[in-house]
Amino acid sequence: MTLNEVMELVKDDVKKVEEELLKNLDSEVQMVNEVASYVFKSGGKRLRPIFLILSSKIAGYEGERAIVLSGVVEYIHTATLLHDDVIDGAKYRRGRKSANNVFGNDITVLCGDFLYSRAFVNLVKDGDSDVQMILANAAKTMSEGEVFQLVKTANFDLTMEDYLKIIYCKTAVLFSSCCEIGAVLAKASLEERENLKEFGRLVGIAFQMSDDILDYLGDEKKTGKKPGTDLKEGKMTLPLLLLRDIATKEEKKRLHEIILDENHNDENLNYIIDLLHKYDIKQKAEDFVDNFINDAKIKLDIFPDSKYKEALLFLSEYVIKRDR
Amino acid sequence: MTLNEVMELVKDDVKKVEEELLKNLDSEVQMVNEVASYVFKSGGKRLRPIFLILSSKIAGYEGERAIVLSGVVEYIHTATLLHDDVIDGAKYRRGRKSANNVFGNDITVLCGDFLYSRAFVNLVKDGDSDVQMILANAAKTMSEGEVFQLVKTANFDLTMEDYLKIIYCKTAVLFSSCCEIGAVLAKASLEERENLKEFGRLVGIAFQMSDDILDYLGDEKKTGKKPGTDLKEGKMTLPLLLLRDIATKEEKKRLHEIILDENHNDENLNYIIDLLHKYDIKQKAEDFVDNFINDAKIKLDIFPDSKYKEALLFLSEYVIKRDR
Repeated sequence: MTLNEVMELVKDDVKKVEEELLKNLDSEVQMVNEVASYVFKSGGKRLRPIFLILSSKIAGYEGERAIVLSGVVEYIHTATLLHDDVIDGAKYRRGRKSANNVFGNDITVLCGDFLYSRAFVNLVKDGDSDVQMILANAAKTMSEGEVFQLVKTANFDLTMEDYLKIIYCKTAVLFSSCCEIGAVLAKASLEERENLKEFGRLVGIAFQMSDDILDYLGDEKKTGKKPGTDLKEGKMTLPLLLLRDIATKEEKKRLHEIILDENHNDENLNYIIDLLHKYDIKQKAEDFVDNFINDAKIKLDIFPDSKYKEALLFLSEYVIKRDR
Repeated sequence: MTLNEVMELVKDDVKKVEEELLKNLDSEVQMVNEVASYVFKSGGKRLRPIFLILSSKIAGYEGERAIVLSGVVEYIHTATLLHDDVIDGAKYRRGRKSANNVFGNDITVLCGDFLYSRAFVNLVKDGDSDVQMILANAAKTMSEGEVFQLVKTANFDLTMEDYLKIIYCKTAVLFSSCCEIGAVLAKASLEERENLKEFGRLVGIAFQMSDDILDYLGDEKKTGKKPGTDLKEGKMTLPLLLLRDIATKEEKKRLHEIILDENHNDENLNYIIDLLHKYDIKQKAEDFVDNFINDAKIKLDIFPDSKYKEALLFLSEYVIKRDR
């Protein structure tokens, strides 16, 4: 399957999701609609909706609830992006000025709250307590994970376990929820539900790891992001973890100083990038990611072959390879 | 009835609510529990739980759901306080350092999100779609209202209608929801439910208005708050609205300049306070508030006499008169 074929397969549904996202921006307070539509109209790949919809289809569901719930998931995701951008003081998002940069921190925090509550209203209307519990727990996990990440800022001794916990909370739990919701919609067996949930979790972890690799080693022209953002924010991510555990004593000492250094200069960043190349960390990190994706793919074995299964298998590779 | 008698009546339930609030702080991320318990242990009058519980009892309900849902409401309320304090840059809350002052803005925003999601988890567990819809809509209204208030900052021409909308969103909708939830728990008639909902709305509006009066004219020793906070934040509230509409042309011009002035000095504040005294605005504003409370009390006429009804009637007076 090619990306074009996958996109063709979900095109109509994605269009409906886009409509759903804008349809609910019916606040009497115009500024709320303005901020939200600024965010939604600035694009985004709608990966989570696509995973939700394909998961529902692979398990045999066809219907409109997948659209509504995709909207809910994308609202929750966007709310977290808004709050994260405020916390990180981000200036850009998806190649445009970030909402906090345009509208200010105050309004951006509140519009995040609005999107949470809007998601909540639609979830209650949908009325499925299984789905509600999945997303309530996901929202809880996501907020806890963000705090955990902050607490662990500039912690040179972060363990791989803590790193995995952080990326589970910030990314994988929502992917996992999307795929599990697909199973719930299809009234899938418990085994199918568990497998889709696990598929989403593994893809989500791999997706975040790829992002973390790109943050040091991506091609700025392809990613549209300046490298070194994580370093600036004191985040210990996969490339640094692998590097730390392989570097010489002297290199390690310097790396530690760099992580604690609040003056972020290009010299520091370049030192790290040179070391990453020296120890071939890109390859090592990508092998790491590939393992997660291989494990993820196996989870789909229990489903009969279909174009939806093919699409999910394709996408699980695509999300980690798009900018390699 | 006296305040002591009311407190005696709800004492056991309030104790259970306190336990409920702390019981759910079971995050694996210790910092989350730390921030939340800092906030809950710093007190608060638990007015919303008390209104919820008494409303359920006046309509004939006895049971544990009132405790759980009181916890949910207090989580939502606290989440909004945390976000508000970040947005207003508040240094103190309830006579102690505010959470943002102790833990920083980042963690405080995220702990607000955590409390929202914790409320959401417990609401889903409770499983009552009527209650869920009431609180989902309340959360939406509250976030919209905060944005609306920000948009209207330093707007000297704010209408009374806009002011009422703001205080409905920031305070009254949650009071209203508490009283309505009481009715839902008791499986009250539609008329009883509407009346309790309206009772809560009117009390909530009066409560916020009283707070707004105290912000200019309260006794710092009794309120524990420095006067003039609203003025600093560019909020047009009841005393200023009434003053604006009664002042001479020259006074009005000066008032307008003060509202736009970002250098907040005591001279400006004292000028306003002198004018408030000159035009006897305190009395006028209190008459305004009393009208809302009188309307509120009438809403309880349809309920048979009981100690719970007496307590609600007492509290509706108490919340507006506590520091007059």
